[in-house]
Amino acid sequence: MSAPESDALLIAGKAYSSRLLVGTGKYKDHDETRRAIVASGAQIVTVAVRRVNIGQTAGEPNLLDVLPPEQFTILPNTAGCYNVKDAVRTCQLARELLDGHKLVKLEVLGDAQTLYPDVPATLAAAETLVKDGFEVMVYTSDDPIVCKRLEEMGCVAVMPLAAPIGSGLGIQNKYNLLTIIENAKVPIIVDAGVGTASDAAIAMELGCDGVLMNTAIAEAKNPVLMASAMRKAIEAGREARLAGRMPRRRYASASSPLEGLPF
Amino acid sequence: MSAPESDALLIAGKAYSSRLLVGTGKYKDHDETRRAIVASGAQIVTVAVRRVNIGQTAGEPNLLDVLPPEQFTILPNTAGCYNVKDAVRTCQLARELLDGHKLVKLEVLGDAQTLYPDVPATLAAAETLVKDGFEVMVYTSDDPIVCKRLEEMGCVAVMPLAAPIGSGLGIQNKYNLLTIIENAKVPIIVDAGVGTASDAAIAMELGCDGVLMNTAIAEAKNPVLMASAMRKAIEAGREARLAGRMPRRRYASASSPLEGLPF
Amino acid sequence: MSAPESDALLIAGKAYSSRLLVGTGKYKDHDETRRAIVASGAQIVTVAVRRVNIGQTAGEPNLLDVLPPEQFTILPNTAGCYNVKDAVRTCQLARELLDGHKLVKLEVLGDAQTLYPDVPATLAAAETLVKDGFEVMVYTSDDPIVCKRLEEMGCVAVMPLAAPIGSGLGIQNKYNLLTIIENAKVPIIVDAGVGTASDAAIAMELGCDGVLMNTAIAEAKNPVLMASAMRKAIEAGREARLAGRMPRRRYASASSPLEGLPF
Amino acid sequence: MSAPESDALLIAGKAYSSRLLVGTGKYKDHDETRRAIVASGAQIVTVAVRRVNIGQTAGEPNLLDVLPPEQFTILPNTAGCYNVKDAVRTCQLARELLDGHKLVKLEVLGDAQTLYPDVPATLAAAETLVKDGFEVMVYTSDDPIVCKRLEEMGCVAVMPLAAPIGSGLGIQNKYNLLTIIENAKVPIIVDAGVGTASDAAIAMELGCDGVLMNTAIAEAKNPVLMASAMRKAIEAGREARLAGRMPRRRYASASSPLEGLPF
Repeated sequence: MSAPESDALLIAGKAYSSRLLVGTGKYKDHDETRRAIVASGAQIVTVAVRRVNIGQTAGEPNLLDVLPPEQFTILPNTAGCYNVKDAVRTCQLARELLDGHKLVKLEVLGDAQTLYPDVPATLAAAETLVKDGFEVMVYTSDDPIVCKRLEEMGCVAVMPLAAPIGSGLGIQNKYNLLTIIENAKVPIIVDAGVGTASDAAIAMELGCDGVLMNTAIAEAKNPVLMASAMRKAIEAGREARLAGRMPRRRYASASSPLEGLPF
Repeated sequence: MSAPESDALLIAGKAYSSRLLVGTGKYKDHDETRRAIVASGAQIVTVAVRRVNIGQTAGEPNLLDVLPPEQFTILPNTAGCYNVKDAVRTCQLARELLDGHKLVKLEVLGDAQTLYPDVPATLAAAETLVKDGFEVMVYTSDDPIVCKRLEEMGCVAVMPLAAPIGSGLGIQNKYNLLTIIENAKVPIIVDAGVGTASDAAIAMELGCDGVLMNTAIAEAKNPVLMASAMRKAIEAGREARLAGRMPRRRYASASSPLEGLPF
Repeated sequence: MSAPESDALLIAGKAYSSRLLVGTGKYKDHDETRRAIVASGAQIVTVAVRRVNIGQTAGEPNLLDVLPPEQFTILPNTAGCYNVKDAVRTCQLARELLDGHKLVKLEVLGDAQTLYPDVPATLAAAETLVKDGFEVMVYTSDDPIVCKRLEEMGCVAVMPLAAPIGSGLGIQNKYNLLTIIENAKVPIIVDAGVGTASDAAIAMELGCDGVLMNTAIAEAKNPVLMASAMRKAIEAGREARLAGRMPRRRYASASSPLEGLPF
Repeated sequence: MSAPESDALLIAGKAYSSRLLVGTGKYKDHDETRRAIVASGAQIVTVAVRRVNIGQTAGEPNLLDVLPPEQFTILPNTAGCYNVKDAVRTCQLARELLDGHKLVKLEVLGDAQTLYPDVPATLAAAETLVKDGFEVMVYTSDDPIVCKRLEEMGCVAVMPLAAPIGSGLGIQNKYNLLTIIENAKVPIIVDAGVGTASDAAIAMELGCDGVLMNTAIAEAKNPVLMASAMRKAIEAGREARLAGRMPRRRYASASSPLEGLPF
């Protein structure tokens, strides 16, 4: 028994059976990267264009040799960009390197310590990229108003953080995330902050359409086993969402509601 | 990639590949019970001897017809017992009905509202049953001292609650559970309180050896799909535990420890 | 024994001994408003210019008759404004009504359901108001990058939300709030989301410079008693912060650190 | 405005205006002990008879010289006792030293690492002491069944832990505590685990009748200031409880209940 076969994640018109999106940074080598990604079952793999060779540097190992675009949807991202101009140029470079590929993950960072997004610059860059024909998946804060605006300007997926990039702290603000999900017509994908399998399951139970992660897998002691854990956690959370959980109550007895408790 | 094949749960000398134990109450009918249990992948199935026909009542449907003891380890339990005598007798009845079967799940309840265990009576009943040759898995509070004592008197597994039976509130006291796990030499199996998939994953990430649940599956809108979610959540949590999660920290930067924060 | 006498809250060059700021909405009548505010010990009282008569409507009861500006710092706010123009005009109207009063609380809302701020409009309105000579205290999301920018453009206090206005949910994202506080040179005052006394204490223990609230007092069953509770909670939290709390650890024993736990 | 004058804590027939009970261990010297306790406003002060000289050792400094029994209710406790016999003897010794004083705080510990109570031994010692004419306030786990039994056997106050002694972790299981409070006819006083002011306020908001603490004050960087913070936090939490907090809800709008959320 599994989630219905029709339960696909739709992004920019394409259907994916996996709801786990993964990054490619921080692995020991390309072989470990490949083995972890295969174990994760991910179909969308994001690549930091400013850090990883996907063809810019001839003669060096190319990540696309181990993650061929025929098998994976490559999602170039703008990690390391701190302003609109850099972010837009990075997307344009990726489009050239990938033969007109339009799907990108935009991130415009606010500072190097927190790696929190620069929301006004993100809005500006997203607008420019959408007008330039890109299909923009966009990393942002968990601000419901900003997420809605990014959807309205044409982004194909909105990706609020759960906690700071690389923190592994898990979802900090469930209420914001829930509001974002309730108001959305495009996929909401948690990006950043997941640390372990239960964090991913919680995101899916809340109603997220998917989760993107990198550090939680790459910095586990055994990245390949953690990739398998994450695959199962995403499926478990999705199935639990679709199955409809039992109500929370104080006791098994029929009438023990939680409303009105002092906490 | 999965957990190593040797990663079996050992209870009373028998190895189980599944770490999810399930109950049989609250389902619509025997068919739904069977389908949910098959979807859960559980190998140990607990049965309330005072409520369910496993042969006591000739001529009525017998649960063992849909859950044959050749396929499942049947775990008779003493649900509904509020004193030592009733609990001990119920185990003895089960042993007769199941041809000398020694493995039982003991619960001695403190009151009908909370279904919280009566700890002194639980200790007394466990002692009697162990002396009488039973292999006792025992439901108790999350009191580390009591859990250790139950192990020392010979129980084959100790089963602290995560939250009240039938509440679905998830793990209330992670510190107690962690202390119990750290001090144990027998399996620690969370019994009661799990409400959804992530709760089960969290229990396994903490280091529990397994999780027993009933209401969370049986009272989901779609019990069979929730059973599948729980199976995956248990595996995800176990694999995440074995894989060794990334450290939690405030930011991706190397030195952002959490120690000393005001919360 | 109390916090040192020199422990004043400085806003726009003026020292306040109270760190509790209060609103004036949702009370039964002006008398209850006055009694609750006196019990709170607040010295800064915020007034929604678009809803409350502070002189706009001659011949009707004027709030300033019960809260005289000689005794309280009146803080006009732009509650109910959803765009830059309305917010700026509301501040200008308040300045006229209050004889050149410069201190205002800016809020530009994103939608009527969540009352979440519109961050880009807030940034724009703050910039206009600062240039026009206002001393701007500004309601915003708990986005550390945005909070820093509002400080850099000259706001005299930055007021991130703890949870949605009127929700009473308490602080949702302690990590964000802590980052905002650590990076700030102007007072950080939690605005919105506090529901009961402990919420206020937690904000102060985190290092906030003050807390502004309205609903938590006005919608308590006994607003005057809750105002007293909040006064004490703010002082308790501030003193606990200054006193330096004991470290958190698993047990009393010297070496039981929390770092590295699975949760 | 304050809590009504009639809002006294009644223990063994005596009324106390303070709901903060404090210990006397871990201070630098007797002078710091005295100054902190005065700042706390506590009227009941507990003393570890096996560690502190209250007359056993003639010629050495006597704690009662700085905390005279005319001003404070001295509450001898059995800290350091790991069995029934030691605990009972310690209480009897205290009664002799304090001229027939009957009020004692019983604790029978389960092990030296966790300082968790030994619940069966606690029940046995409490029964013996009550029969011997003592007025027993009793430290125990947060087990609702055990707490009720201690009340039924005649203990004058039941004192569940919030978290391990000396941990400063705050309340771990609010549901258990709430159940204990709802079912009690004697005062329920949180004993152990409070770390900072907000923890104390939360306990009072939940409905506890008082809080006993030692390490949180004595191990603060500034114990005297922390004692003042705790005094205010206890009052704030009590007043907030009596004032009746606003309901929690997702938004200010009238109909935004929390019931049925996925978390």
